[in-house]
Amino acid sequence: MRKLRYNVAVSLDGYIARSDGSFDWIVEDSSIDFDALFAQFDTLLMGRKTYEVVRSQGAGGPFEQMDKVIVSRSHPPGVEGNCRFIGEDFPRYVQILKAGSGRDIWLFGGGTLFRALLDVGLVDTVEVAVMPVLLGDGIPMLARPAVTTPLELISCKRLASGIVMLKYGVRTHAA
Amino acid sequence: MRKLRYNVAVSLDGYIARSDGSFDWIVEDSSIDFDALFAQFDTLLMGRKTYEVVRSQGAGGPFEQMDKVIVSRSHPPGVEGNCRFIGEDFPRYVQILKAGSGRDIWLFGGGTLFRALLDVGLVDTVEVAVMPVLLGDGIPMLARPAVTTPLELISCKRLASGIVMLKYGVRTHAA
Repeated sequence: MRKLRYNVAVSLDGYIARSDGSFDWIVEDSSIDFDALFAQFDTLLMGRKTYEVVRSQGAGGPFEQMDKVIVSRSHPPGVEGNCRFIGEDFPRYVQILKAGSGRDIWLFGGGTLFRALLDVGLVDTVEVAVMPVLLGDGIPMLARPAVTTPLELISCKRLASGIVMLKYGVRTHAA
Repeated sequence: MRKLRYNVAVSLDGYIARSDGSFDWIVEDSSIDFDALFAQFDTLLMGRKTYEVVRSQGAGGPFEQMDKVIVSRSHPPGVEGNCRFIGEDFPRYVQILKAGSGRDIWLFGGGTLFRALLDVGLVDTVEVAVMPVLLGDGIPMLARPAVTTPLELISCKRLASGIVMLKYGVRTHAA
C-alpha cells in the first residue's frame, strides 16, 4: 500500500513556517538529493493555505508534474488540471488514495491537515529536516489540541549544514 | 568562563512539558550517563514554575546538592539554604555568575527564562534530548515572540530508545 508521509522542514522549536507562511529560515544543503526524494512520490497532499504557498512559487517547479490533492473548506470540490480539490470527506478520499496504486503520497502540510489525518490513523511516517534555528513563533508542525502520539525512530542523519534528518514511524493508529 | 547551557528534554513538536507541567511522556533510557551529565554542573538556574516542579519531587534527588538560582517576580529576593531567589535584575546576576569560578550553569527551564536570557545573549548552548513523541500542545521550549536565532550544530547522537541528543551553539549573541 502507498504510504502517507509527512515530510517537512522544521525549526528546532517545532515550526514549519513563520506566522506569515514564510520559510526563508530554511537552510540550503546541496548534499540533499532532491531528485531522489521527489522520485519517491507522485502525489502531493496539502491544505489550502499550503497550496497557496506552493502556487505562489510559479510554474515549472519540482511539483509541477505531481498530482496535487488540496483539502479546502472554501474551494468547490473538483478537478483543475492536475489539482483535485476535496472538502470535508477528505479522510475517506485519502483512504481510497492510499489503497490505490502509485508511489507514496507526500503530506506537504500544514499542521492542521497533519493533525486531522494523524487523528484518524492515516499518517504512516513523520520525516522532519530539523533546521539549526529557533524561530520563537510561527505555524506549528502539528496543530492543537494536546493528543499524545508515540513515534518510533527509524533513522537519524546529520548533514554538514547542521540540518538533522529524522524519520519516525507513527506507532499507534487510531483507525 | 562558565557556560550557561539550556539542557532539556523536548517533544518532536517542541514542548518541554504538557500544559499542566507534567513530563510523563519523557522516555527513559538507561544508556544515558546521568552521573557524568550532573558532574558537569554545580548550579541550576530556573524560573519559579520550574522550581515548583523540581521541589515537588521531594528531597534527596540528584539536584539536592546543587546550588539553585530561581528567577521569580513574586518570591522575595534572598537566600534559603542552597536556593537563591532573584528578581528582575536576573540578567546582571547571571552575568556575574558566569564570570565567576565553578562548573557550568544548567539552565533548567522554562521557555520564558530561556527567551529572556537568549535575548540578552547569555545562553551559550542549547542541548535537547528529542523524545520520539508528539504532544500537540504544551509549554514551548522557547517562549514567544518571534525572534530568529541561528544555531550551530555541535553534535547529534541517536540512542537505542529513539531519543536523539542534539547539541547546538548559539551563533549570535545580542549582548
